[in-house]
Amino acid sequence: PGKKVLIVYAHQEPKSFNGSLLKIAVEELTKQGCSVTVSDLYAMQFEPRATRNDVVDGLNNSEVFNYGMESREAYQRGCLSKDLVEEQKKVQEADLLIFQFPLYWFNMPAILKGWMDRVLVPGFAYDLSKPGGLLQGKLCLFSFTTGGTKEKYATRGDIRYLLWPMQRGLTQFCGLKVLEPHICYAPEHASEEKRKEMLTAWTQRLKTLWKEEPIDGSPEWYFK
Amino acid sequence: PGKKVLIVYAHQEPKSFNGSLLKIAVEELTKQGCSVTVSDLYAMQFEPRATRNDVVDGLNNSEVFNYGMESREAYQRGCLSKDLVEEQKKVQEADLLIFQFPLYWFNMPAILKGWMDRVLVPGFAYDLSKPGGLLQGKLCLFSFTTGGTKEKYATRGDIRYLLWPMQRGLTQFCGLKVLEPHICYAPEHASEEKRKEMLTAWTQRLKTLWKEEPIDGSPEWYFK
Repeated sequence: PGKKVLIVYAHQEPKSFNGSLLKIAVEELTKQGCSVTVSDLYAMQFEPRATRNDVVDGLNNSEVFNYGMESREAYQRGCLSKDLVEEQKKVQEADLLIFQFPLYWFNMPAILKGWMDRVLVPGFAYDLSKPGGLLQGKLCLFSFTTGGTKEKYATRGDIRYLLWPMQRGLTQFCGLKVLEPHICYAPEHASEEKRKEMLTAWTQRLKTLWKEEPIDGSPEWYFK
Repeated sequence: PGKKVLIVYAHQEPKSFNGSLLKIAVEELTKQGCSVTVSDLYAMQFEPRATRNDVVDGLNNSEVFNYGMESREAYQRGCLSKDLVEEQKKVQEADLLIFQFPLYWFNMPAILKGWMDRVLVPGFAYDLSKPGGLLQGKLCLFSFTTGGTKEKYATRGDIRYLLWPMQRGLTQFCGLKVLEPHICYAPEHASEEKRKEMLTAWTQRLKTLWKEEPIDGSPEWYFK
């Protein structure tokens, strides 16, 4: 109630299962009185490539382009490209970031990886000289679908091994706290009934989301 | 000698340390008599986003867009977009794929992830009904730089945990064999002398590359 949520959404098709999960989250959280913003990356034609176009004035060193350095300094000067400034504003205002996407190659789709690469600029999201991260006090939640069934991912804490690199920068560098991931296994191969159950489970979870404690976030949690 | 190598390269700046590693690989492998092709993703302005533009004729189901299904069927019809067909031809001809990139957020940069998402189409790279993968007989090698020092990555087999999701699809689905990754730690913070040593080490490794055995590729290797 009164909380602000940013959903970073990476699916091409509103009628997809990911689209349904997004719709549910928007509806349920809005119903709770949250203010919900969606970054619909494909609809926005969000640029995933980290290039010199991200700096709108002159580069600090145009002879040898260094993306990390240039983006950090452009952020300080207020000279990052408009799309990044807008995303950063959304992140800054949010109490909770939800990432909604289908797993591609055991990882997030390129368009979402590009959002991380470009939006979470040093100086904005983290500062290595200031341990703890610049986005402390915020939560994030990875909500994704898989191609493979739960059984395929059941051995050896497998899905958590995938989560580790995806979530690690957000926790370790930016200082976000991570809620338990929400995973829908193989919706494309599930029965209509099973799909409905999965959607209902998401609605139910969202109802008590704000009472949840963040997961541990240490390697012990991911590799147990 | 006579071997074909494809280097998929993801750095914006030829004068970067990654650029030097690329140059060394091209020179050394060419000297050995290999035929070397480079996909310089930023220079090509490679498209990382998986969209309906990847299908050049009509979609199978334009009402509900499903990227995996549409790309598989477009591949079969020979109707994938030109940039993908060209990359697939390079992959098909290669004996060895080298991925050269800086680690961004404990993972590959979005532009390289987009290459994986879009080029390794079902039907071309793998077929879930034909276990073993469609790219068997090929090798791959992940060569990357980090921001953090080796000490930062030394605990708990850490760097291997990152490799697992990056390499897993290529081995498990496509059937590629993986050579030991080549990692240059924190070149940006290293002395000029140390940087030269790292470049020399890469040259030296390439001299005997074809005698190397692939790494195990099983979870045991990654999580030991």
